[in-house]
Amino acid sequence: MSTNSAEKRPKPPSSQFGDQIPWKKRKAELKEKHKQWKNAKLIKRLEKQKQQETAERAEQEESQSKKGRAYTVSVALPGSVLDNAQSPELRTYLAGQIARACVVFNVDEIVVFDEQGEDVKSVEGEFKGVGKKGHACIQLARILQYMECPQYLRKWFFPVHKDLQYAGLLNPLDSPHHMRIDEESEYREGRVLNKPPKQGKGSLVNCGMRKDVRIDKQLQPDLRVTVKLTKTQNQESRLYKGVVVAPHVPRTEGGLYWGYTVRLASCLSSVFTESPFKEGYDLTAGTSERGSSVDQVILSPFKHLLVVFGGLQGLEASLDADQNLDVTDPSVLFDLYLNTCPDQGSRTIRTEEAILISMAALRQKITAAFSEDSSSS
Amino acid sequence: MSTNSAEKRPKPPSSQFGDQIPWKKRKAELKEKHKQWKNAKLIKRLEKQKQQETAERAEQEESQSKKGRAYTVSVALPGSVLDNAQSPELRTYLAGQIARACVVFNVDEIVVFDEQGEDVKSVEGEFKGVGKKGHACIQLARILQYMECPQYLRKWFFPVHKDLQYAGLLNPLDSPHHMRIDEESEYREGRVLNKPPKQGKGSLVNCGMRKDVRIDKQLQPDLRVTVKLTKTQNQESRLYKGVVVAPHVPRTEGGLYWGYTVRLASCLSSVFTESPFKEGYDLTAGTSERGSSVDQVILSPFKHLLVVFGGLQGLEASLDADQNLDVTDPSVLFDLYLNTCPDQGSRTIRTEEAILISMAALRQKITAAFSEDSSSS
Ligand SMILES: C[S@@+](CC[C@H](N)C(=O)[O-])C[C@H]1O[C@@H](n2cnc3c(N)ncnc32)[C@H](O)[C@@H]1O
Ligand SMILES: C[S@@+](CC[C@H](N)C(=O)[O-])C[C@H]1O[C@@H](n2cnc3c(N)ncnc32)[C@H](O)[C@@H]1O
Repeated sequence: MSTNSAEKRPKPPSSQFGDQIPWKKRKAELKEKHKQWKNAKLIKRLEKQKQQETAERAEQEESQSKKGRAYTVSVALPGSVLDNAQSPELRTYLAGQIARACVVFNVDEIVVFDEQGEDVKSVEGEFKGVGKKGHACIQLARILQYMECPQYLRKWFFPVHKDLQYAGLLNPLDSPHHMRIDEESEYREGRVLNKPPKQGKGSLVNCGMRKDVRIDKQLQPDLRVTVKLTKTQNQESRLYKGVVVAPHVPRTEGGLYWGYTVRLASCLSSVFTESPFKEGYDLTAGTSERGSSVDQVILSPFKHLLVVFGGLQGLEASLDADQNLDVTDPSVLFDLYLNTCPDQGSRTIRTEEAILISMAALRQKITAAFSEDSSSS
Repeated sequence: MSTNSAEKRPKPPSSQFGDQIPWKKRKAELKEKHKQWKNAKLIKRLEKQKQQETAERAEQEESQSKKGRAYTVSVALPGSVLDNAQSPELRTYLAGQIARACVVFNVDEIVVFDEQGEDVKSVEGEFKGVGKKGHACIQLARILQYMECPQYLRKWFFPVHKDLQYAGLLNPLDSPHHMRIDEESEYREGRVLNKPPKQGKGSLVNCGMRKDVRIDKQLQPDLRVTVKLTKTQNQESRLYKGVVVAPHVPRTEGGLYWGYTVRLASCLSSVFTESPFKEGYDLTAGTSERGSSVDQVILSPFKHLLVVFGGLQGLEASLDADQNLDVTDPSVLFDLYLNTCPDQGSRTIRTEEAILISMAALRQKITAAFSEDSSSS
């Protein structure tokens, strides 16, 4: 639809009537024409206003019907799980399995905690080799971040790195925020371009589309931003228009799953104490074959759910490695301590399997907690 | 406990009384001794009988308290899933993921069906190379069988083969029938040894224990058999004793998960028509993101459940490749057509993930179907 025609003025009265027409008559006619033109302009302006209002209402209704999702789900696991892989390729593949498991179940935050005294807080530090052992937390976090980043932004945010040497083996996340170039979407992830914006205008952002996006603010180049694209774009413009929003907006207002953040925790207790949510996690679940059966659990609505997994030796080992925790029984750390696979046919379930199994069991309970019936009861 | 002493006769009367004792007296004494010996023998025989009865009762009670599991669960998937792997190593790893997913959920039969016109019925045929494409059904079936076989029997049943070149990367199933050498168990998998048994005695079987097992029958060498070990073994004997039972007995009488069988099907319809169960499958479920939500499903008790998964292109593609089936909508083939992961955060769920997710969702429903409450209602 060409919606911007209202902005193009109809041609002003001109010499169309020829010279033979007397001046006075011509003046009266011109006056009449001008009146008509002004009226037409007014009508178009009103039409445009009406159109905008309709669009805004539709937008509002859409986001209201989708309602948005207010709660978050976080998953925590020890980076040491990577050390169980038998080759650098499988180590990478395993990280990919974890990322995919979390995305399939709309996980908003993945916390990688250390249970071996690696004591790392960022993915910055220098990498010491692709050996099987060590460096597990940092490498897991880096691969998780890499996978979460839309393809079109990766070359900017993830320069060549040995941790990512086998990234070609990773199965893509295929999440809603990984958009193809011509896909239409209300929101897009982007990178602020290093082109100085003109006075009074916002920065340019690469959102992986055929045109750059002019946002409403001037931001630091190379920042990763979430952009809400303006509903009606001028197709003839060299640029798209959009506004920068907080990364949670696609979820809280659009009801979309918008990938996960990655956080490193230096020990199990930091998973709880360094929560990015002001109020912390209001529902926490530990997982273990020694937990109580998930089948009997009914969840109440929550704000921030945290589900914690152990590594090869289970959460007992994670607890033992944590100098801040005196207890020896992991169950006391959590609101729920769940066996999510009663009667398992294998003596051990691997962590990457346990994430899929546990989140599948909890998905249904989460849905039930937030369905009309249960929230009204 | 030495329980077999009853079988060792007390020494028969001998020359213990010396020569000085008169013949007549000696005869009377011998008679008396013989009577005593006969009485003792009778008592021991009765004792043994009592012991046996007690053991049998205990055994019965145990299997009754465990109750055994009468139903079976089968999973079917196209071998073509292997063709999605990016390297021969990952191809093997993927087969291992599938095997483990099935074992975790106590799956009794895995059916590998062809959806590419490979038309294979056994794992015999010659292997043509470890290339990425082709040969998928046979390789998947072979790896599944290899993994299911207890370690101590593998070298006999699985000679070196290119399909198993990367078997070292496979994570073990760790299922109850994969016993360690000194583990005590009522049942064991074994291989009939190539030692000709003595007249009237049963064959010898290698059950992965420190001694071979003498079974109750003479069987062909190299046969794989399920052995029920006699409760009370003579610790001093060179051999253990046991009887051959049908492979379903550990499940139906012992209530144990006892691994899976592997079946090749030349097309999707053969999955149904070539069921090893006389009555076929009495409950069938197809899986698809286009199915109806698993959350609303309630299962009734069944005898033989079949859960079918699609490959890269879903069950529609499996259907298209099947010349025996005229329909185009897979849902009509099944009693249930289920979306086991409503609101999935990734556009596609991979088959190996879908098995874990779907079986996790169904586990709870199966348990409910067979729990006291629901079977009495
Ligand atoms: C390899 S397992 C740990 C096994 C360890 N030997 C133990 O006894 O805890 C790794 C993780 O998978 C998860 N897990 C395994 N089986 C589980 C079950 N039945 N229910 C819930 N979580 C399980 C737990 O988070 C566990 O820490
Ligand atoms: C890669 S998916 C197939 C995707 C294919 N494009 C389709 O639309 O069906 C492979 C298999 O995983 C299973 N699967 C994937 N998502 C599922 C879901 N939400 N519910 C149940 N099964 C699912 C199905 O068996 C499917 O055939």
